[in-house]
Amino acid sequence: MSYELYYWTGIPGRGEFVRMALEDAGADYVDVARVKGDGVIEKLAKEVATPSFAPPVLRDGEIVVGQTAAILLHLGPKLGLAPRQAAARLWVHQIQLTIADLTVEAHDTHHPVDVNAYFEEQRPEARRRAAAFRQQRLPKFLDWFETVIARNPGRSGWLAGTRASYADLSLFHLVAALRYAFPEAMSREMRGRDRVAELCRRVAERPRIAAYLASGRRLPFSESGVFRHYPELDG
Amino acid sequence: MSYELYYWTGIPGRGEFVRMALEDAGADYVDVARVKGDGVIEKLAKEVATPSFAPPVLRDGEIVVGQTAAILLHLGPKLGLAPRQAAARLWVHQIQLTIADLTVEAHDTHHPVDVNAYFEEQRPEARRRAAAFRQQRLPKFLDWFETVIARNPGRSGWLAGTRASYADLSLFHLVAALRYAFPEAMSREMRGRDRVAELCRRVAERPRIAAYLASGRRLPFSESGVFRHYPELDG
Repeated sequence: MSYELYYWTGIPGRGEFVRMALEDAGADYVDVARVKGDGVIEKLAKEVATPSFAPPVLRDGEIVVGQTAAILLHLGPKLGLAPRQAAARLWVHQIQLTIADLTVEAHDTHHPVDVNAYFEEQRPEARRRAAAFRQQRLPKFLDWFETVIARNPGRSGWLAGTRASYADLSLFHLVAALRYAFPEAMSREMRGRDRVAELCRRVAERPRIAAYLASGRRLPFSESGVFRHYPELDG
Repeated sequence: MSYELYYWTGIPGRGEFVRMALEDAGADYVDVARVKGDGVIEKLAKEVATPSFAPPVLRDGEIVVGQTAAILLHLGPKLGLAPRQAAARLWVHQIQLTIADLTVEAHDTHHPVDVNAYFEEQRPEARRRAAAFRQQRLPKFLDWFETVIARNPGRSGWLAGTRASYADLSLFHLVAALRYAFPEAMSREMRGRDRVAELCRRVAERPRIAAYLASGRRLPFSESGVFRHYPELDG
């Protein structure tokens, strides 16, 4: 039976972290809202005993799970994208949660004071938050990813263990998203962060990922999404 | 062997979600920084193969795990504070991740544009973010917790299953923290949210929690913490 992914149509958003894992594994899945419309997301939340606060949501038979990192915690072992050992699995999950934290911070650069108002209604605040993000937070997170790869006892160039995990796929997508949103800052900040850059190159070369990135299934970034490019927020 | 918790001294912060579980279970643990000083947190991060981006961090023998929700995912079953079935465990974890999301949003009311600057340097932005939080986000999250308790097939009054889990303890702490930070808004918003209120009452009455709350180990909320009371942000 195929997996069902529920996520807003039209943007890669947080759903993309899940898609990356499904695509890399060659899993059979349906992107339900892209077939039936966004209404199915609310409908699902009304029906189930485990309603998610927000999408993405994954249905896997009887299991309906939300929160990106929890979805990947569930899917990882089934897709061959998580280590076998429990402690190593927990570590990969912890990395994924830190990727989620950086995602929130990147989102909040364009919506610092009111998530329900337009960017245009909070531009001065966004400029200030984006500057703090670029100068302080982004380098700190990138340093952490470099350290994690460097300290991996598996010495594989991946974040954890000797094989790629869903966290590596997510880091690839996160870096791609940050390069879209903050091209100038990322061009500067990726200098010397060779481990992260090399990991991203290796993910892009994985055959199923390469095919996915070239396909119509991979949605483009845009100014409706979680990661947005506003030149005034970059630099 | 006792658990070691690493978290900043002086504030309950995110460490408190972990303490609530350890205390409720009567677990043997050391709050390491409160014994040896905050320096041990950075020292630990420098030594281990799995450095956490930020505290809290738990050391359990060979395992060193960060990210509050990941710590509780690990501890829950060992402390008897998680369901036995894998799907139910995943659901409790998903609830905990949503508690973490609300925690970030509550924190960002007083630090909306620069986490490294003082509140006093971002007061107008904080007022705007806090208004959006109180009017839109807080009611939405509280409604979600009400729905989760109402839909629990275990009909136990807890968030999931028939017994209290670490997520119930965390929700108690979160509501206490929000009541501290936003007394007016919470007094208004808790009206009619009887399931959440009742759950909190039941947590407070658990013997080990009651003893803990009355002890010197329970740190007070303050304006150095994650949840802060600034009257201009309430209302």
